[in-house]
Amino acid sequence: MQPKVVIIGGGFGGLYAAKALKRAPVDVTLIDRRNFHLFQPLLYQVATSGLSPGDIAAPLRSIVRNQRNTRVLLGEVVDIDVEASSVVLDDGERIPYDYLIVATGATHSYFGKDQWAAHAPGLKTIEDALAIRRRVLLAYETAERETDPDRIQAWLTFVVVGGGPTGVELAGALGEMANFTLRRDFRNINPATTRVLLVEMADRVLTAYPPRLSQAATESLQELGVTVRTGTRVVDIRQDAVVLQSGDTAEEIRTHMVLWAAGVQASPLGSILHERTGAELDRVGRVVVAPDCSVPGHPEIFVVGDLARFDHGLEQPLPGVAPVAMQQGSYVARLITRQLRGETLPPFRYHDKGSMATIGRAAAVAKIGPLQFSGLPAWLAWLFVHLMYLVGFANRLLVFIQWAWNYLTYRRHVRLIVGGGAVDTSEQR
Amino acid sequence: MQPKVVIIGGGFGGLYAAKALKRAPVDVTLIDRRNFHLFQPLLYQVATSGLSPGDIAAPLRSIVRNQRNTRVLLGEVVDIDVEASSVVLDDGERIPYDYLIVATGATHSYFGKDQWAAHAPGLKTIEDALAIRRRVLLAYETAERETDPDRIQAWLTFVVVGGGPTGVELAGALGEMANFTLRRDFRNINPATTRVLLVEMADRVLTAYPPRLSQAATESLQELGVTVRTGTRVVDIRQDAVVLQSGDTAEEIRTHMVLWAAGVQASPLGSILHERTGAELDRVGRVVVAPDCSVPGHPEIFVVGDLARFDHGLEQPLPGVAPVAMQQGSYVARLITRQLRGETLPPFRYHDKGSMATIGRAAAVAKIGPLQFSGLPAWLAWLFVHLMYLVGFANRLLVFIQWAWNYLTYRRHVRLIVGGGAVDTSEQR
Repeated sequence: MQPKVVIIGGGFGGLYAAKALKRAPVDVTLIDRRNFHLFQPLLYQVATSGLSPGDIAAPLRSIVRNQRNTRVLLGEVVDIDVEASSVVLDDGERIPYDYLIVATGATHSYFGKDQWAAHAPGLKTIEDALAIRRRVLLAYETAERETDPDRIQAWLTFVVVGGGPTGVELAGALGEMANFTLRRDFRNINPATTRVLLVEMADRVLTAYPPRLSQAATESLQELGVTVRTGTRVVDIRQDAVVLQSGDTAEEIRTHMVLWAAGVQASPLGSILHERTGAELDRVGRVVVAPDCSVPGHPEIFVVGDLARFDHGLEQPLPGVAPVAMQQGSYVARLITRQLRGETLPPFRYHDKGSMATIGRAAAVAKIGPLQFSGLPAWLAWLFVHLMYLVGFANRLLVFIQWAWNYLTYRRHVRLIVGGGAVDTSEQR
Repeated sequence: MQPKVVIIGGGFGGLYAAKALKRAPVDVTLIDRRNFHLFQPLLYQVATSGLSPGDIAAPLRSIVRNQRNTRVLLGEVVDIDVEASSVVLDDGERIPYDYLIVATGATHSYFGKDQWAAHAPGLKTIEDALAIRRRVLLAYETAERETDPDRIQAWLTFVVVGGGPTGVELAGALGEMANFTLRRDFRNINPATTRVLLVEMADRVLTAYPPRLSQAATESLQELGVTVRTGTRVVDIRQDAVVLQSGDTAEEIRTHMVLWAAGVQASPLGSILHERTGAELDRVGRVVVAPDCSVPGHPEIFVVGDLARFDHGLEQPLPGVAPVAMQQGSYVARLITRQLRGETLPPFRYHDKGSMATIGRAAAVAKIGPLQFSGLPAWLAWLFVHLMYLVGFANRLLVFIQWAWNYLTYRRHVRLIVGGGAVDTSEQR
């Protein structure tokens, strides 16, 4: 019997750990609630009709099909039995482990205002993205059939909360849709009158980037018709309005579409680890890990990716981005392989190869080492990097063609209103 | 004011009518419940993870965006007020018309056994296709976690009811998935042990084709591991079993996945037309139309496509296939244009350019005029024709690439389990 490695979560952290264990003398079980790996950095493209879900997701089974030491299990982990060294699935099944890698990531947090969730969807899953796509397209359809100018304006007002990369990318894509994609689609309304507001508490967007790039991003957003409101907080969200506050001034804005791109909340497995191992959690519920990404006192349990708080030798903890998760996943796989040979590995070190965010057609910002650039060069770099990391040749080619198509024609061909339930139809009529 | 043409339905019939009215001196309103045109002949590819919904659907607004005399209206028609010459939408709005083209098609019929619908989904909408995709993939996932051999076999038994083109295509694609696509995906089960049953009442499949082609189709299906059961009726469908009857022998087969590809029921607008104009309906609810596709006694109302029963000078009525709908749509548009000039047009005549059905990788049957062929030549012809009629350049290119990819690798990359509600999860666990 080979040692058993159980990986919870098939995102960047879990998948890269599994792949790096391909030749290790272990039995790997990769558990996920979903049967696919999702390329989350492009999820906003699904929400804005630029790509299909199938373009940015690949079946986990397909990715590891030739990795004979790895099996994929579709299931939800509800507990970790640290004493018995097994994870517990929702149907009661127990999966024993010798090594456990927890990589279940994070979701969005409404800062305790959970009632906002119904009116301000976030963007973490394919279902989220399809719901947003549906609501955005229905807002235009409803406006087209509406006659009252105020009501039309309310339907054509989109508020994006949070000026991080996701918020910037969403706002930029919505601005592009309004000004280019939908330009000749309607007869009663003019989509170019759409108001897209990007709301950020801090004094600039993309605070993880140098101020110069924040400025470049703001200018690109403004060219796409996006109003950037920094130093502004959201104090209330209702079905038909949002209340913003800048300094002492509060303003109510009528809208049916608030998109939530702020706040992070670690996956519930963090609290479970805390209860079972006493591991410390930070303010957003991330597990504070040791320098080798293990849970202190439990060298056989590792936490990688967005669920881990790693701050050894750093001024601030590592950010919740894909490259950190990938590198941590691979690192832990290598560490396990070494340990099985009786060897060891130096602590984890993140190699920051740079970061980038896109704003729209040919507009992006990037910092790579000492380099900072924006505009077309940054956009091309962004395009290249995102295509390279997309899993599977078919997906890459399809995404590339759709981008080329969207770029040349300004179209977004996946403008389909599908699915949806009571909420959406009640909103429409 | 130009004469108003109202078209209900953005399928092949309605869309081709709208497009053929592009230069006519009329105001066109195209009404559909959905915001997209769906290329229904490829819907089975979405159900079997080969294509994404976005590949076979195009936004109606996008298709007619440069057609300034045409507006698109997202809405559901609930009545036709023949006296007032207006259609009534579900929110009470009335759209007046001078000419009305009804092209709302058909759905599937369970021959009065509506309780079967819950266990045996049909394939008419994108939601249908996604639900089938979800259930098929979940069946394999559940089988992988199951230990009892009988239960595993029940999850791996798929029954397709109806041996027309849709049933043949679905069964072929399911056989291909089981034997090729999923071959190395699982560790506990062997997908090649999947049973795919194709059940047909008549003594052969594809009864609209010559017997020789039915035979070729049956052989191709058998090569994909499909069991073809002709002369067999479905007498009961339950959540966990289907009862088949051949002659006097009844057989119960345990399965969780029955797919319905039999029976046609015309859209409810047929009955509304019957009530309001006295138009005759046939057994499946289609409107019996005059030689110019108009409703007898109402030269201003036309019915085209699957909702129309047209049998003038024919041995049997025209079949419910896309080319008939397209030609009728274009014909009616030309007729209206002529009438506005005080001219007329000879009665509608269908030009049968042939028909074809695909069974799987490089296998298809085709009859084109006096020619009958099968195998690779038929498959290439099928591929070419379907690509040519797909709306939009981006879609065509994407579909072509995915086919090439699927062909070369046997993969179907859109194997995503998304959405779904109580029914599916209760089935899974």
